[in-house]
Amino acid sequence: MRLRIDLAYDGGAFRGWATQPGLRTVQGHLEAALTTVLRLERIDTVCAGRTDAGVHARGQVVHVDVQDLPPKLAPPRLLRRLNGVLPADVRVRRVVEAPPGFDARFSALWRRYAYRIADRADLVDPLTRAHVQVWDRPLDLEAMNEASEQLLGLHDFAAFCRRRAGGTTIRSLLDLHWSRSEEGLAVATVRADAFCHSMVRSLVGSLLAVGEHRREPAWVGEILGVTERDPSVAVAPARGLTLEEVAYPADDELRAQAFVTMRKRNG
Amino acid sequence: MRLRIDLAYDGGAFRGWATQPGLRTVQGHLEAALTTVLRLERIDTVCAGRTDAGVHARGQVVHVDVQDLPPKLAPPRLLRRLNGVLPADVRVRRVVEAPPGFDARFSALWRRYAYRIADRADLVDPLTRAHVQVWDRPLDLEAMNEASEQLLGLHDFAAFCRRRAGGTTIRSLLDLHWSRSEEGLAVATVRADAFCHSMVRSLVGSLLAVGEHRREPAWVGEILGVTERDPSVAVAPARGLTLEEVAYPADDELRAQAFVTMRKRNG
Repeated sequence: MRLRIDLAYDGGAFRGWATQPGLRTVQGHLEAALTTVLRLERIDTVCAGRTDAGVHARGQVVHVDVQDLPPKLAPPRLLRRLNGVLPADVRVRRVVEAPPGFDARFSALWRRYAYRIADRADLVDPLTRAHVQVWDRPLDLEAMNEASEQLLGLHDFAAFCRRRAGGTTIRSLLDLHWSRSEEGLAVATVRADAFCHSMVRSLVGSLLAVGEHRREPAWVGEILGVTERDPSVAVAPARGLTLEEVAYPADDELRAQAFVTMRKRNG
Repeated sequence: MRLRIDLAYDGGAFRGWATQPGLRTVQGHLEAALTTVLRLERIDTVCAGRTDAGVHARGQVVHVDVQDLPPKLAPPRLLRRLNGVLPADVRVRRVVEAPPGFDARFSALWRRYAYRIADRADLVDPLTRAHVQVWDRPLDLEAMNEASEQLLGLHDFAAFCRRRAGGTTIRSLLDLHWSRSEEGLAVATVRADAFCHSMVRSLVGSLLAVGEHRREPAWVGEILGVTERDPSVAVAPARGLTLEEVAYPADDELRAQAFVTMRKRNG
């Protein structure tokens, strides 16, 4: 049987999602917790969004294939057992048996990230310092939104990506806009079918230059025409970035969506 | 001249507000930062709400009397200098010259606290774990609100206070209600002219017993009749409690308010 595990983490003390020998990673801790609780030699997890070092998640989704679970490890109990073993900076929020055809990575319709910035001294809150980036200059969200609009839609985001061998950098950016939260923070909502490596932080980095009036909004559109990583694009710090949500289609469309995704990713 | 300093802190690593020799306190750090930046031997701060060990603040207000400041230490620069010296878990959010008659403690009209609880596994968020209390049983906010209403108004809150020599425990509770935040957290809003020692956490502790259906709502009203600290009232953990706001009257009423407060407190 396949389990769907929803989890949240404070990425500050992790070297990202993916297991790396000798480093503290979210996948490493989750797999260690699963092998302990399920008394297995090893287990392989697949996640929806492989977050980088320091990036947080509230809506990470993972699948894992297991033998049938004994009643004492039925999902609600499994959740409590896992949280009993995991460190406080990772929490399992939900465990359910996945519907047929579910794949945490390939069935996903889109991923949504938020990037949070305190751009005035009176907005800096020690209680949220783990996931809100402090910015010393005030940001012009209107200019940033004007720049953001040019990026929406299907494009080759090569200029904003750290290239990985064999992968396409064509993505469909479904949403990118900035607004003020109730407290006054500058918050970007960024949603795409998928993201290539460091893409959200590169998009945010280029928009910060616009928000500080170091660049014109049109500059961001010009970068989009470049077909390889542009060195003038700064990567925004990981601290402000949180994977908020991953969306999946209705149960009867999971397999079809995974097929579509795999065809797209292989170009 | 008198300065008004607004500050925020994550109380988790502090032994409360008030300076205690050899212990890490917010007042100790703030006074050390002020003496460093202003090059003084010592300085005395007065705050609006003396928070206990582990309690947080977003809206703490402090006053301090200083000699006239040189232009290079005018309030906006002073703020940056102080934040440069303070640890990351305390941030100065605003520094201004206080209006005549301002007293952070005695001019205050009321203090507002929030108590935040994640009472379901899917609400537990590692990014807010420093200031949201996890509760293993779901809470019935309707019952808690029914109980809360009985406490509103002017009462002797002796049953909910750790008594201090010479002080009255008569307080005016202006607001006490529970609601669900956008994310689903159980949040208490607690507002009073002032609070005696451990009062908010004792009120919350008694209401938690009602929310879990261990006690009837009427039980809370019965405790209110008791004239000394009631051992059946549990004190809720400090982690969930944050001083959110302190309100002051218009500038021309500051002195009058301080006079009224001092007369009240001396019974």
